[in-house]
Amino acid sequence: MALIFILAESALELVPKEVANHPSVAKYAEKLGKKPTEILLDRSYHHEAMKRLSCPEKRGRPDIAHITLLEVLGTPLNREALLQTYVHTIDDRVIKVNPAVRLPRNFERFKGLIEQLYAAGRVPKSGEALLSIERLNLKELKEKVNPSKVIAFSTVGKPKTLSDVCSEIAEEENPAVIVGGFPHGHFRESTLKIADEVIRVDKEALEAWVIASRIIYQYELATGLPEKRLWQARL
Amino acid sequence: MALIFILAESALELVPKEVANHPSVAKYAEKLGKKPTEILLDRSYHHEAMKRLSCPEKRGRPDIAHITLLEVLGTPLNREALLQTYVHTIDDRVIKVNPAVRLPRNFERFKGLIEQLYAAGRVPKSGEALLSIERLNLKELKEKVNPSKVIAFSTVGKPKTLSDVCSEIAEEENPAVIVGGFPHGHFRESTLKIADEVIRVDKEALEAWVIASRIIYQYELATGLPEKRLWQARL
Repeated sequence: MALIFILAESALELVPKEVANHPSVAKYAEKLGKKPTEILLDRSYHHEAMKRLSCPEKRGRPDIAHITLLEVLGTPLNREALLQTYVHTIDDRVIKVNPAVRLPRNFERFKGLIEQLYAAGRVPKSGEALLSIERLNLKELKEKVNPSKVIAFSTVGKPKTLSDVCSEIAEEENPAVIVGGFPHGHFRESTLKIADEVIRVDKEALEAWVIASRIIYQYELATGLPEKRLWQARL
Repeated sequence: MALIFILAESALELVPKEVANHPSVAKYAEKLGKKPTEILLDRSYHHEAMKRLSCPEKRGRPDIAHITLLEVLGTPLNREALLQTYVHTIDDRVIKVNPAVRLPRNFERFKGLIEQLYAAGRVPKSGEALLSIERLNLKELKEKVNPSKVIAFSTVGKPKTLSDVCSEIAEEENPAVIVGGFPHGHFRESTLKIADEVIRVDKEALEAWVIASRIIYQYELATGLPEKRLWQARL
């Protein structure tokens, strides 16, 4: 029994070919000693180039996956290996995250690691994979992990408290929760379609890392984990 | 009635004079076009230089304050202006954080902003302060904000569930919670002394951003905020 956490449509991708030659991208890549198409698109540095892209408001924010992953992987639930974490990206890749991975806390190093991952398909190159990436859309990911129930969190969903949601999914064998990994806008239709329920838990949109941390904590509460761990012998 | 959140002994400081001339620091500062003593100490870049410092294991991790502040400032509690946030640093400065501040999501820009703050004492230079900094130790901060109760979270504390802690402090007029803003080790004696209770809520040490997010969410639960906001008219 484990919770499946999916950060969906994440604003994480390599620089697309159509802006690879833009000065703001080319100069930045050169400084890193990489080809433009080997580095992550990042609005903080490629703002001008991004104006040429479609849906720019949903793209180029690798910090969202970084901070959300640090939140999620640091939880007691993950330390108990009761959490399976996936990052689905806006261009339909899926990164499978080993619960044991220790991601760089430094953002630039995190980006370097993800760039390595794109280049090699997995990190590290040999031995047990800590991160692996493949072309997969959300529907295919769902077929692969085969969750007993899928809940997506969105301000367009029907209102329900997180406490009620988590009491319900705590009864499930392997429920999946979907949180948006993009800064603005809404899920695509195709994402909403794979969810059994679309729920909103607040009157405003919450950042991915805020909603992710409370979903996992509330799920822990519903399954009695905090109490159980507290009274275990100290490590 | 508001919750006071204090990130204490945070691993956030300008490069100290004794390592300002170390090559790893001097080169990095030059690249930024700043003096070494005007930039933040950051283990990711100044690891070698830090070997010369006392207590290096508790220093040079500005990412901890960054990620924790993003978590904390994005909560519904903060959006309701029911949260007062302070970052106390290892060298006894206190940064007062305006609930309305929108911090840079990009780590390098966050560091740039904090460096401006150290230089000017406040950000922005005129108008309402979004961040301000002064020399203050934790005891002085406590006298200033005058909390009705102070709870510090530490693995050396007495075991209690977060749910019990928050039910208790929800009854208080202006309770303060203290979370460590450093990567390893424990609070100083002087920090523990200002707390009415020292509590551990898990068998292992949790990262600052993980414990911070669950304290605030659990406090929201104890005060009925999630339910209240959910059923308010949508903005």
